[in-house]
Amino acid sequence: MGVTIPGCQETYQSESRSERGSERLRDEHQKIRRFREGDVFAMPAGVAKWIYNDGDSPAICVTLYDISSSHNQLDQNLRNFYLAGNPQQRDFGSERRRRSYEEGNNIFTGFDQDLLADAYGVSVETINKLQGVNDNRGNIVRVERSLEVLRPEWRLEEEEIREERRRESENGIEETFCTIKLIENTNNPSMADLFNPRGGRITTIDSKKLTILDYLQLSAERVVLYRDAIMAPHWHVNAHSVVYVTRGSGRIQVANDNGRLVFDQQVQEGQLLVIPQNFVAVKKASSEGLEFIAFKTNGHAIGSTLAGEGSAMRGMPMEVLMNSFRVSRKDARQLKYGRREMVVFGPRRLARSREGEDPFSIV
Amino acid sequence: MGVTIPGCQETYQSESRSERGSERLRDEHQKIRRFREGDVFAMPAGVAKWIYNDGDSPAICVTLYDISSSHNQLDQNLRNFYLAGNPQQRDFGSERRRRSYEEGNNIFTGFDQDLLADAYGVSVETINKLQGVNDNRGNIVRVERSLEVLRPEWRLEEEEIREERRRESENGIEETFCTIKLIENTNNPSMADLFNPRGGRITTIDSKKLTILDYLQLSAERVVLYRDAIMAPHWHVNAHSVVYVTRGSGRIQVANDNGRLVFDQQVQEGQLLVIPQNFVAVKKASSEGLEFIAFKTNGHAIGSTLAGEGSAMRGMPMEVLMNSFRVSRKDARQLKYGRREMVVFGPRRLARSREGEDPFSIV
Amino acid sequence: MGVTIPGCQETYQSESRSERGSERLRDEHQKIRRFREGDVFAMPAGVAKWIYNDGDSPAICVTLYDISSSHNQLDQNLRNFYLAGNPQQRDFGSERRRRSYEEGNNIFTGFDQDLLADAYGVSVETINKLQGVNDNRGNIVRVERSLEVLRPEWRLEEEEIREERRRESENGIEETFCTIKLIENTNNPSMADLFNPRGGRITTIDSKKLTILDYLQLSAERVVLYRDAIMAPHWHVNAHSVVYVTRGSGRIQVANDNGRLVFDQQVQEGQLLVIPQNFVAVKKASSEGLEFIAFKTNGHAIGSTLAGEGSAMRGMPMEVLMNSFRVSRKDARQLKYGRREMVVFGPRRLARSREGEDPFSIV
Repeated sequence: MGVTIPGCQETYQSESRSERGSERLRDEHQKIRRFREGDVFAMPAGVAKWIYNDGDSPAICVTLYDISSSHNQLDQNLRNFYLAGNPQQRDFGSERRRRSYEEGNNIFTGFDQDLLADAYGVSVETINKLQGVNDNRGNIVRVERSLEVLRPEWRLEEEEIREERRRESENGIEETFCTIKLIENTNNPSMADLFNPRGGRITTIDSKKLTILDYLQLSAERVVLYRDAIMAPHWHVNAHSVVYVTRGSGRIQVANDNGRLVFDQQVQEGQLLVIPQNFVAVKKASSEGLEFIAFKTNGHAIGSTLAGEGSAMRGMPMEVLMNSFRVSRKDARQLKYGRREMVVFGPRRLARSREGEDPFSIV
Repeated sequence: MGVTIPGCQETYQSESRSERGSERLRDEHQKIRRFREGDVFAMPAGVAKWIYNDGDSPAICVTLYDISSSHNQLDQNLRNFYLAGNPQQRDFGSERRRRSYEEGNNIFTGFDQDLLADAYGVSVETINKLQGVNDNRGNIVRVERSLEVLRPEWRLEEEEIREERRRESENGIEETFCTIKLIENTNNPSMADLFNPRGGRITTIDSKKLTILDYLQLSAERVVLYRDAIMAPHWHVNAHSVVYVTRGSGRIQVANDNGRLVFDQQVQEGQLLVIPQNFVAVKKASSEGLEFIAFKTNGHAIGSTLAGEGSAMRGMPMEVLMNSFRVSRKDARQLKYGRREMVVFGPRRLARSREGEDPFSIV
Repeated sequence: MGVTIPGCQETYQSESRSERGSERLRDEHQKIRRFREGDVFAMPAGVAKWIYNDGDSPAICVTLYDISSSHNQLDQNLRNFYLAGNPQQRDFGSERRRRSYEEGNNIFTGFDQDLLADAYGVSVETINKLQGVNDNRGNIVRVERSLEVLRPEWRLEEEEIREERRRESENGIEETFCTIKLIENTNNPSMADLFNPRGGRITTIDSKKLTILDYLQLSAERVVLYRDAIMAPHWHVNAHSVVYVTRGSGRIQVANDNGRLVFDQQVQEGQLLVIPQNFVAVKKASSEGLEFIAFKTNGHAIGSTLAGEGSAMRGMPMEVLMNSFRVSRKDARQLKYGRREMVVFGPRRLARSREGEDPFSIV
């Protein structure tokens, strides 16, 4: 993946074989970043980018565009600017907008050819190709031979570390952006921020781990629920959640401020669900387990749970619960301490308990 | 008052008498904060809270909800999420919205009972109570016996000071939030920021005094005008004002950008007035005096006065006033220096002056 | 120019001749700032200001009001609050709004005269003049004699330097604002940030040069294109541009996200053009040359060019261009390296090149 950031140097100086064989032409370009399954990319708006899949299986990317970001000063329509190709695909907008998309083209198409030829110092024939006039390949194209420049292999990782270090001694947005980390992986179980061997794990990618998320005001949470595990009833104080199921299935319920369910369904791999800020959700994995990635519209999303360790119930005095819910001291105690786990709960060991028993013996 | 902040520890470890008498059960919960007349609370959106009145008179709270805050990512409707109770009250929204409120309930009501029983590790009977199914008490309930846990008394103040100190050596939002000060009192005359023994006093609670207001982008100003005192014509450069009269009465005039009055009335205790950003207001106390609290939609609201010490008139050269208003040098001088006080002006000593005399002898 | 900032001291203590001749009255007021051709002023919203032209030619000011700024909490209408005068001019708003403006007046007009007389400690006759009741001069008035106070001459510059230094050792918004620099000149060629002796020059005034622009989130770019020069195809990643032509003429093309031209015209002195964020523009000077000032809706606007040194094309590997545009290696090389200049390109030396030749010989 290449992200071409304005004001940054061409720090990759690569060599490639010319068409005629023996001759060697040098090329310079900006840093290239490799990605693999489970990676989260953070991408600033308005920078030029391209993605090339050199693996042996299709890459599935789920992209959240935050059009209500303060960085978007245009209207609330998603606008893709293509530097190349002749995008034929349609958008989800209105009929009028969709029609204009059919005629759509890359950003060079409309410009005067002589003006562009002048600006690039090239012939009008080359501008014809730049404008993609006779190019019907759409916006995903097949590379005929493999891209030769894209093999920094393990040295890339090394370089990343080196650049990361250099960054700390520099000032100014552009310089920082040129070497800033844009990718973080969520698949490694040993990197989990919360782990319950009976319930599952949660890995958070937020502005503390990936500095650029502080600028983008977005973050992500990777959740793996084991079979029959429950994610405690919770809401997010300062963010919407966009949940995309990556594996397995389960049941999700979401309640609004009137206490009514606005969602109550089985979900499975490939499905996407939006949970608004402050709306309360409960998620339960099926016997297959449930894995999902949740994008959050805040660089440091704050969740609040309603059951278990660290929950709002735990934070309130027992007597407040007794009076608020008209329950006995024993029931209030069960509500506060019935689950000793945090956020992710394992399946209940029903064999060892019966309804109404002291909850301390349950979990 | 309890504010349950996600990610914070249960730092209050209290003991309470069990129902059976001698036995003692320990309970842990988050910090409890006491309030008294004249207190301003700053409350982050989305945190769980409860309020209990253990005094001997009704508590009147005036709450400003800033739905246009950047912290609200939902629509521009006020949405209250109740964790308990069965709120029957109606909202000021549309007919459709109001109807849905009648059916409204707490956030647990809609969820599947078995799912909740599982999440809490309690019986379905307890979940019934959690969901408030047969609870018609609304959202304000009477505590049968006094809440036993709520007596940290003077030690609370001590603890607050200690925690405040500890906070300074910590990093990170959550940790800071756990011990951050949320309450400041405005009634103590010796804390006034501006005092004129003939006119009155102003106490400002802004982000410099209460750090959390920098996060909330709200502030407050408590104004006490003595009998017949005037608050100089002024506008706020960066904030709306929501004025609530707490005592006495007076006259308020507000002008818009066309120089026309959009408000000109007597106001009295319990009335509320919104003054938009940049609109010019003049306030004059009646013979009873006038006291109000003004909430501002900025963490550090900047006011600009048009008369007296520190005013825009003072900042301009006399010759600019002479030419702008076509007045003599003498009149320009009166406009600049006719009032030597700042913001709050005492009643004019008419006995000692006549119209047209040198203003320097008036005040 | 006077900018009266709330909370700031009257630091100019000037003397002026009284009307009667020999007598001397002292006056105090806030700092006065001089301006000359090519100056950019940054003006916080809501502060009182006046401008006086003591030069020998008309002053033309182009003002950008950022009504979508976070500092504006009112609606999206432009609202001017006049402290003096009786503005008769009309606005560009709707018919209804325009009518109200005809009746418009200064902010004092509507207030009760006795209340204002009381607030200022002056007579009702003076308030009559303050309210501009019989003043039909509009909002630009002719000064009868020259304003005597406005001659700090070269000492002003000196003072500015001194105050600038003092500022660094102070804290708090108001104190900083009192001495903050509000003006920067763009006309001096030796101050240009980018200079191409064949193409022209660019001078940027952003938050790094003028600190207050970080607060206002606005910046400006002064561009001088010599005859037949081209400004590379470019877009702004984080800002709209408002272009005002100050001299000469040229051709501007602007393309939207569908690749269609939304603007394609000759422009000349006195014309104004809005280019939205991310929209791609090409500008070419006529044989007269083209000069303009572009205001940007970001304190640090980031531009991205598509041709020449530092462009997005340069940042991408040649093989990506070859595959994206279906061009030969030679053409891809031309697209990347056909122009060795940065942003501002001189006219092509056609005498020395023919279409299709190696671009490296062209420039």
